[in-house]
Amino acid sequence: MRKNKYLISPNINNNALTVNVRGIDQHNNPVDNKIIQERALTIFLNNQEIVTLMSIGDYPKYLSVGYLLNQNMLKLTDRIKSIEYDSDIGVIVVRTNRKTNYETILRKKITTSGCAQGTVFGDIYEEIQKRKIKSRLKISPKSIYEISKKINLTPSLYLEAGAVHGCVIIKNDRPIIYMEDVGRHNAVDKITGYMFLNKIKTSDKIFYTTGRLTSEMVIKTVKMSIPILISRSGFTSWGVDLAVKTNLTLIGRAKGKKYIVLSGMHRIKL
Amino acid sequence: MRKNKYLISPNINNNALTVNVRGIDQHNNPVDNKIIQERALTIFLNNQEIVTLMSIGDYPKYLSVGYLLNQNMLKLTDRIKSIEYDSDIGVIVVRTNRKTNYETILRKKITTSGCAQGTVFGDIYEEIQKRKIKSRLKISPKSIYEISKKINLTPSLYLEAGAVHGCVIIKNDRPIIYMEDVGRHNAVDKITGYMFLNKIKTSDKIFYTTGRLTSEMVIKTVKMSIPILISRSGFTSWGVDLAVKTNLTLIGRAKGKKYIVLSGMHRIKL
Repeated sequence: MRKNKYLISPNINNNALTVNVRGIDQHNNPVDNKIIQERALTIFLNNQEIVTLMSIGDYPKYLSVGYLLNQNMLKLTDRIKSIEYDSDIGVIVVRTNRKTNYETILRKKITTSGCAQGTVFGDIYEEIQKRKIKSRLKISPKSIYEISKKINLTPSLYLEAGAVHGCVIIKNDRPIIYMEDVGRHNAVDKITGYMFLNKIKTSDKIFYTTGRLTSEMVIKTVKMSIPILISRSGFTSWGVDLAVKTNLTLIGRAKGKKYIVLSGMHRIKL
Repeated sequence: MRKNKYLISPNINNNALTVNVRGIDQHNNPVDNKIIQERALTIFLNNQEIVTLMSIGDYPKYLSVGYLLNQNMLKLTDRIKSIEYDSDIGVIVVRTNRKTNYETILRKKITTSGCAQGTVFGDIYEEIQKRKIKSRLKISPKSIYEISKKINLTPSLYLEAGAVHGCVIIKNDRPIIYMEDVGRHNAVDKITGYMFLNKIKTSDKIFYTTGRLTSEMVIKTVKMSIPILISRSGFTSWGVDLAVKTNLTLIGRAKGKKYIVLSGMHRIKL
C-alpha cells in the first residue's frame, strides 16, 4: 500500500497513539471514534528540568533532542552521553559531556513566550535574522505538485484520527521522513532530532508541513539550514518577513496544482 | 451582505490587520497576496510584566483581560481601574484595585508550559477537573448545522487572508460574537475579555471554534461556564477526558450536516 519507503514515519498500527471513544453521530446513532492520544513528556537536560510538552508520545528521543537543539540548549557540537526514557512517568533525561545550565534562558522564557506560535522567541529570533540560506537547490512546479500528492497518499495518523499536524522531509522529490504530533512544533522538533542523531545532511532537502507558515516554522527550517519550505496552509506576515531576510524559499497554499511563492522565488525552476 | 448582526466581529476593512505581499503563482505569474499581520503585544498587570503574545493586533483590551482571566491572574470579582494601550510599542497595562503579584505563577510556568496547546496547565488543570457545567441548555441537530452554516457565511479574515482561527459565541442559534487570531487561544481570550467587560451571561451560550478540540479549548470553555462547544475540527484525548469530567457537551467534525458528539450527549435534543 505504501508507495514511498520512509526512513521513519508514524506507526499507524501502534494502538498506544490513539484511543477509541464511543459517541453519537448526527442521527443519534452510536459511533466508535479513534482519537489521538496526548501524553505529557517532561524533558531534563542533565540535572535540570527544562519543559513539559504535550505530545502524541511517539519518538520521545527525537522529540527531546530536537526540542533542545531548537531552543539552543543543545549545540551541534555537543556529545550526547545518554538518553534515558521512562515511559511510565513520561520523563526523558538527555545527558551531555558538556555541563549545562539554562536557568537564565528558562527565566527569560517567562516574559518572551507568548505561546502564540507554540514557541519561544527572545535570543533565537535575533540570532536567526542574521542567517542566510545558501543552498542552490531548486524545485520545479511539477515537483511541488508531486511531493504534495505523495504525502497526501501516505498512511498517517491524520488520515486515521485527524487532529494532528504532519511534517515531512523530502529528498529528490521523495518524502523520506514523516513525523506527526498534536502541535506542529513537536513534529518539527522530532524531525530535527532524527536528522541530528542520524547525521542526515539538510541543505539538499525540502521541508513540507501541513501547518501554517508562521515565524516559528520559518525559524526552525532556517536553523536546520533547509532551503525550501512548503505548506498546504497559508502565510503569516512574520513568517514571510523572516523567510525573505534569511533567503528561505517559502511556498504556501500548495493544493492540487496550485501554490504561491512569497520568498526565495529564485529557487523555482522555470 | 452580512446576514447576522454581530455585537462584535473582526473588521475586515481594517487595513492594519493584513499586509499585501507580492509573490508568484504556479504559472510563475506575479500575484498580490493579502496575508495576516502579526504583532507582539506585551501585557502588564499593574507593575508586573506578564507575557508577550503574538496576535493579529485587534481588540488588545479584550485579549489582555481575557488572557489574564484565563490564567487566573484576574479574578471575576476584580475591579479594573484602567486599561492603557500604547499601540506604538505594543504594550498594554491592566490596573486593578487589588494588589497583584504573580511571580510564583510565572516561575511555575517554566516547567509546566509545553506550549503544545499554546497554554499553561499546572494549577489551572487541577482546578478545572473539579468543576461541573450545570446549564440545562440543549441543542438540536438542525441548530448545529444552521450555526455552522451561518458562521461559514460570515465575512472573516479567514476568508480574506486565511491562516487564522475563529471563535464564535452563539445565542439562540444566532452567532453574536466573532473573534479571530493567529492562535485560537488568542481568539478565545478576546471572547473571554469581551464577555467579562460587557457582563454577558455565559450559561445560555454556545461556543464554536474552527480549531481542534484540545484540552486547552475545553479548559477555557469550562472556565467561562459555557455548556456546549462545537468545532469543525477533530478531538484530542485530553480534550474529551476533560469534557466528560466537567459535563461539557463536545461536538466535533461539524461539517455540512455531519457531526460527532463525544461528551455531554444529554444536551442533544432528540
